[in-house]
Amino acid sequence: MIYDTLTQPTLILDEARCKANIRHMCRKANDQGVVLRPHFKTHQSKIIGRWFGDMGIDKITVSSVGMARYFAEDGWKDITIAFPVNVRQIDEIKALSAQVRIGLLVLDADTLDILGKNLNDPVSIWIKIDVGTHRTGIDPAQSESIEAILDRLAKYPQLSFSGFLAHAGHTYHSRSVTEVQRIYDHSLTALLDLKMKYLSKFPDLRISLGDTPGASMVSQFGSVDELRPGNFVFYDLMQEEIGACQLDDIAVVMACPVVAVHPERKHWIIYGGAIHFSKDFLQMEDGRKCFGRMVTPTYDSWNTANISANPYLLSLSQEHGVVQCTDQNFDLCRPGDISLWLPVHSCLTADAIGSYINTAGAPIDHYRIRVYE
Amino acid sequence: MIYDTLTQPTLILDEARCKANIRHMCRKANDQGVVLRPHFKTHQSKIIGRWFGDMGIDKITVSSVGMARYFAEDGWKDITIAFPVNVRQIDEIKALSAQVRIGLLVLDADTLDILGKNLNDPVSIWIKIDVGTHRTGIDPAQSESIEAILDRLAKYPQLSFSGFLAHAGHTYHSRSVTEVQRIYDHSLTALLDLKMKYLSKFPDLRISLGDTPGASMVSQFGSVDELRPGNFVFYDLMQEEIGACQLDDIAVVMACPVVAVHPERKHWIIYGGAIHFSKDFLQMEDGRKCFGRMVTPTYDSWNTANISANPYLLSLSQEHGVVQCTDQNFDLCRPGDISLWLPVHSCLTADAIGSYINTAGAPIDHYRIRVYE
Repeated sequence: MIYDTLTQPTLILDEARCKANIRHMCRKANDQGVVLRPHFKTHQSKIIGRWFGDMGIDKITVSSVGMARYFAEDGWKDITIAFPVNVRQIDEIKALSAQVRIGLLVLDADTLDILGKNLNDPVSIWIKIDVGTHRTGIDPAQSESIEAILDRLAKYPQLSFSGFLAHAGHTYHSRSVTEVQRIYDHSLTALLDLKMKYLSKFPDLRISLGDTPGASMVSQFGSVDELRPGNFVFYDLMQEEIGACQLDDIAVVMACPVVAVHPERKHWIIYGGAIHFSKDFLQMEDGRKCFGRMVTPTYDSWNTANISANPYLLSLSQEHGVVQCTDQNFDLCRPGDISLWLPVHSCLTADAIGSYINTAGAPIDHYRIRVYE
Repeated sequence: MIYDTLTQPTLILDEARCKANIRHMCRKANDQGVVLRPHFKTHQSKIIGRWFGDMGIDKITVSSVGMARYFAEDGWKDITIAFPVNVRQIDEIKALSAQVRIGLLVLDADTLDILGKNLNDPVSIWIKIDVGTHRTGIDPAQSESIEAILDRLAKYPQLSFSGFLAHAGHTYHSRSVTEVQRIYDHSLTALLDLKMKYLSKFPDLRISLGDTPGASMVSQFGSVDELRPGNFVFYDLMQEEIGACQLDDIAVVMACPVVAVHPERKHWIIYGGAIHFSKDFLQMEDGRKCFGRMVTPTYDSWNTANISANPYLLSLSQEHGVVQCTDQNFDLCRPGDISLWLPVHSCLTADAIGSYINTAGAPIDHYRIRVYE
């Protein structure tokens, strides 16, 4: 059993669950004729990326120029960098655009000028639209801003207008299919209105939406051209709380040694802290925070049966985790045992620890791997 | 100017501020005849470690076996691993104990047996005491638990009892010198009572306390033998809020490109998110969160004058930061500019980004460095 061999906090990937998540999303998009351009910022892994390739995916999304380069090295040819273009990296963007087709997100005409004056190779330009998340993007009603960009685009023949792109991140505050559906419909309508408005001038323009709750919970994608969810490759407790997945869909667990127990408070201390899990948490009904939930090891994976009877992760400091137990479950572990934890936010957990292994113990690459141990 | 050369989120160390923090703490401990055994988990850097060596420090604290090995490789000979001993790493501990003097934290007699049966070389054993933080440690009133460990210790001559060690982490909830002093006095009294109780049997036993608010804010350390603060090497906004430092003592800033601006909400979007800063935040009076505060670049550092008139970091997602501005400061930056941010929790920020440079652009090593870009 893999767990017996572990000596310190280790993020473990269940390939079967992960591949099932990939397969399910690929089929759902394919059945509806929607292009799936999965966001690779969650797994940041060439190996996992290839599993998408095996399912026919040939277009991907990343969140940084460096991550685009990492996947370009592995043969990906069509990569959207779904982050407002950072013009300070113009030299890197230029080098990358000479190798693969990249998509860039633009929010203002001045930035477009910098791209136009510096890039020689064909690049796809997406206008980033704010569909209500209010993180970034142009309000769809701000026609002047949109048209200023489109006018400027005409000066640079190597920059081709791909269309309008949005991230409906406010689905993360939803807790029901109805609410996620409402946000999805509203977002799609906003993008469709823009498409209709500019389609005669740009007959190839597309609209792209992307968030895991929407892609998971909405049954009919409607007239969207492209979807860019990312987190679904692993899912996590936050997605389960939103309703985007079942606990058994979560494809990663953090394995942590128990190092101390405190019967008087019914606490365990685990070796596993903020530098392994990251600090995202769920707020529980009693006002306490939950940084992870314990699952039960099986020979080659884990199971989530009776999870509500298991301890949960109450707090994290740099390398310590404090686990809240009850009288009934306190004796499940002793110092020296390995405990398994579903993470609250798998994207940040994978990035924080910077590595994983599969349930057979084989390493899975991660772009921001750590050099240590 | 260093900032002009940056292309992406970069953690910058002001060596002068950092060395002043080191010097100040070394002198304060030295003047009072207290051993300073600084915690290196904040900086995790051999280069910065050597600055402590230059000040006469020859004993250090770390938070993991791997980190102990990292510093042992750089010549440190006396290293306390201030984390409940993780017996799953017994082989690594054994290898390390053959090279340098290590100190281990023990909370139960069974763990001590594992150490005693596996280790051959002399090792220092500290009993971890809970002085009120209630994270981990033995309640000082639990004489039975303490004596069970001490009895077992007698079986293993290579394990020598160093004394009682505590971390008064509840000073992090304090906001005044009086409160920090009260916690320090209470913690010291608890350890001194134990020392008095066992001194006749163990005439060399020592007591060790360690937290940055206590070490920074308490003027008279009293009869403590050893202090183990760590964060003071950089300080951060959390320490400033507690009252442990001034804003100008903070020795690191995160430099982040501005990538978008939203005049309607008076927001900027920066390239700099949870994977760079970590997700610790301060709660502001109006209920909003603050993930960082902006400072002004100078030729070879930064200044904190008029910081309250500057924007602050309102939220973080994986790679985005959302900055709240006012009418007055919104025009300070435009897309393409570099903005500078004091971090809320420098230990986690340094670990999250995994690298730094100094203000002249030279790289500073970090134990958990990332391979990327």
